[in-house]
Amino acid sequence: MRTDPFCWASVSELGAALGSGDLSCVEVVDGFMARISALNLSAVAFIDVYEVEARARAAWLDQHGSVHPLHGIPYALKDLIDIKGQRTSAGSAVFADHIAEKDAEVVTRLDRAGGVCLGKANLHEFAYGATGENKLFGTAVNAYDSSRLAGGSSSGSAAAVAWGLVPFALGTDTGGSVRSPAALSGLVGLKPTYGRLPMDGVVPYSWSLDHLGILTRSVSDCAAVFGVLTDSNNSGESSGGGHTLSAWASRISSTALRGKTIGVPREFFFDNVDQEILAATESVIDFLKREGVSVKEVATPDLRFARTVSLTIQMPEALSFHMPWLEKRPEAYGEDFRTGLALGQQLLAEHYVRAKRFMTIYRQEVDRAFETVDALITPSTPIVAPKIGTIDVSTNGVTEPVGNAMMRFTNFFNTTGHPAISVPSGIHSSGLPMGVQLVGRAFGEWELFAFAQAINVEPAFKLPRPAV
Amino acid sequence: MRTDPFCWASVSELGAALGSGDLSCVEVVDGFMARISALNLSAVAFIDVYEVEARARAAWLDQHGSVHPLHGIPYALKDLIDIKGQRTSAGSAVFADHIAEKDAEVVTRLDRAGGVCLGKANLHEFAYGATGENKLFGTAVNAYDSSRLAGGSSSGSAAAVAWGLVPFALGTDTGGSVRSPAALSGLVGLKPTYGRLPMDGVVPYSWSLDHLGILTRSVSDCAAVFGVLTDSNNSGESSGGGHTLSAWASRISSTALRGKTIGVPREFFFDNVDQEILAATESVIDFLKREGVSVKEVATPDLRFARTVSLTIQMPEALSFHMPWLEKRPEAYGEDFRTGLALGQQLLAEHYVRAKRFMTIYRQEVDRAFETVDALITPSTPIVAPKIGTIDVSTNGVTEPVGNAMMRFTNFFNTTGHPAISVPSGIHSSGLPMGVQLVGRAFGEWELFAFAQAINVEPAFKLPRPAV
Repeated sequence: MRTDPFCWASVSELGAALGSGDLSCVEVVDGFMARISALNLSAVAFIDVYEVEARARAAWLDQHGSVHPLHGIPYALKDLIDIKGQRTSAGSAVFADHIAEKDAEVVTRLDRAGGVCLGKANLHEFAYGATGENKLFGTAVNAYDSSRLAGGSSSGSAAAVAWGLVPFALGTDTGGSVRSPAALSGLVGLKPTYGRLPMDGVVPYSWSLDHLGILTRSVSDCAAVFGVLTDSNNSGESSGGGHTLSAWASRISSTALRGKTIGVPREFFFDNVDQEILAATESVIDFLKREGVSVKEVATPDLRFARTVSLTIQMPEALSFHMPWLEKRPEAYGEDFRTGLALGQQLLAEHYVRAKRFMTIYRQEVDRAFETVDALITPSTPIVAPKIGTIDVSTNGVTEPVGNAMMRFTNFFNTTGHPAISVPSGIHSSGLPMGVQLVGRAFGEWELFAFAQAINVEPAFKLPRPAV
Repeated sequence: MRTDPFCWASVSELGAALGSGDLSCVEVVDGFMARISALNLSAVAFIDVYEVEARARAAWLDQHGSVHPLHGIPYALKDLIDIKGQRTSAGSAVFADHIAEKDAEVVTRLDRAGGVCLGKANLHEFAYGATGENKLFGTAVNAYDSSRLAGGSSSGSAAAVAWGLVPFALGTDTGGSVRSPAALSGLVGLKPTYGRLPMDGVVPYSWSLDHLGILTRSVSDCAAVFGVLTDSNNSGESSGGGHTLSAWASRISSTALRGKTIGVPREFFFDNVDQEILAATESVIDFLKREGVSVKEVATPDLRFARTVSLTIQMPEALSFHMPWLEKRPEAYGEDFRTGLALGQQLLAEHYVRAKRFMTIYRQEVDRAFETVDALITPSTPIVAPKIGTIDVSTNGVTEPVGNAMMRFTNFFNTTGHPAISVPSGIHSSGLPMGVQLVGRAFGEWELFAFAQAINVEPAFKLPRPAV
């Protein structure tokens, strides 16, 4: 396939080739578009593909220089994120004809940085659900096994990157919807600190817990995109302002780990986990130890109510946003989501207020852990990617709904707001990817990248490229 | 009475006399204590008086120099504010034996600044109510007419200052509980921007709306206390750090008004107001115009739901805090408050979430008004201080519960979080004080003081001293 030379290139490699003129923006867009045409029917990654717009944008960029950090780099957006004049379907019949009136703030930033949006990625309806199963648009497929889920709710964002259809994608993460599909699809997935990336122009699910996130194939790509998105100099002036991609990637200090401490909350986060995922997590911990990191067992906060706390916040907030449409077109909602919203209608204000107070306590407890450690480590998920259509899963004899399992270890850190990243920890005997979750101090993304990068460049944890 | 020479002195005058050694801290404390002994039975201002502690503190201060900005200045605290080792009754039988474990942050700051707490001031039970009527501790009495309310819920804080028992007091304001008693008692009452003064160590009523506030007899006193409380240099080092009182008072720019614009939201805020209060407010507006201020009529936000929004936030938050005590000792709560909490139990999470969204909209609307004006002006209250025991009041044929009337114009600005100050606007034919409310930009307290100060020093709006 014509795209082979660069479809698996890193963001930085692509940036270098585009910057030097070895590749034109149009060539890159055409190459990825050819691959999307060939593979999207299998991947079910994209809902809408912007063939005409992306090519026009690439041609314009080819004429207007290459000083911007993301000059000509293609990307995909979870279809909750607005682009002016395009529809934002939110993966739902309810919004299928909804045209956005302006760009989301994050789209403005990517535009200023020279990026090229190739299209909108598939998702679980309104981001309510971890599997990514979508009756209207189909279900995004795992790049390592086409009978399995890509993960969700940012299912299409994960599939688009894992299938080599874009080098990076944005998703949203309210309970793990970036980190969980990243782990199951063999990617790096970052949920930055709550509020670190702007949610303006993104269809909300639960604004107290919603985080915009980044999916890439490597930690250095993730850091580069994060750097560009958070750069206050990314001002869109023709001077190009802002740092280059390689400057962002090299901001990760590779020698900074020695003397740092990683915390291991064994209770809850290491219970009822697939044995190979557990072993891979222990291997990562051992590796960090060899790199000079101190390993410290830390107490797990009391998580008995954590899932309830999360749902008690999610459902009334979702209900409050959806009420106008729910009243007019209840039949347009999928059954899952309608049931969830009905649950939201039963909750008392007192419950919600109490859940918000729990969030404060949880945040304070995790902040306190960071007084003695520099990061926390857990498996990202207790299971590998389940078969499409799975209802319940069992681990160590404990059975739970598949969606609960997929979010079991990620969910809590949406209530605390700390940055968390999923990084591959190796390949399972089933041939499926496994991941570890690293959690950092509030607004400590760059320190977190240092841990993640060390793991990500270690050969023992490298994944084979999917055969797609 | 021995206290006559200084019991009505301003904070700055007292500070000057204490700084120069004309008065000792012990003399000042003894003087005010004598006045409290003589008058508190009539004023019902204090719940607890710290005669021994205040004298010991004053003696210590006399020995240890006078470099701190509030050196030896007495004050009172609404009895929701913790002092380590003292009880915080919250005006309730429920907390009557509750001993605080540490100082509220604001107490720490006043201590560092050299202030001397004379005691804890009376209040409406748990700050739930505008009248200050309190069956357990009695009802604080208006200094201008002992058959009338001082206002509430910071009733004792207002009475303590108005009766000349302290030069300043702190209160809390969730719907107007500092500004309304200030207006009714002839004082200056500031509710700073939401979050500007720390609520740590203050018994909450509704944390989304609670504001700590300041009650004084003049704007320059208010500015001086606000300056000390917000001074990042007020660090408690023996060097004394921080600005002097007179430096804070002189930070108010007296000439800055020319060219500024004041907004007049006539709809709602000028409806159904006592004719003399309305005329006084117009006189203030005319005066500002003569001082070079442009007057601009501004649209009033749609306030149909504002009271409901406020209650929908207050009651579940109050309920959430009180639940542990409410379950154990329901009979210890006054009937009013128990009824309010029962109402809170009926509210759905969806209602609360919607009310929070209204808060955001209200804040944005008021922020927008400040794009074309520098302050807003309204009457502080539509009525003068009611008789103790009043249930309903009628203005222009419209009858409402007395508490609603007292908070009618202040309530909204707790939902928006903007700073607001009540300043005397003259004396009513009944002999009772009247006030205007000025509202400023978020974190624009010093700009607000400039407007307030101009009105406060104008002879036309001066109040006679109460005959107490």
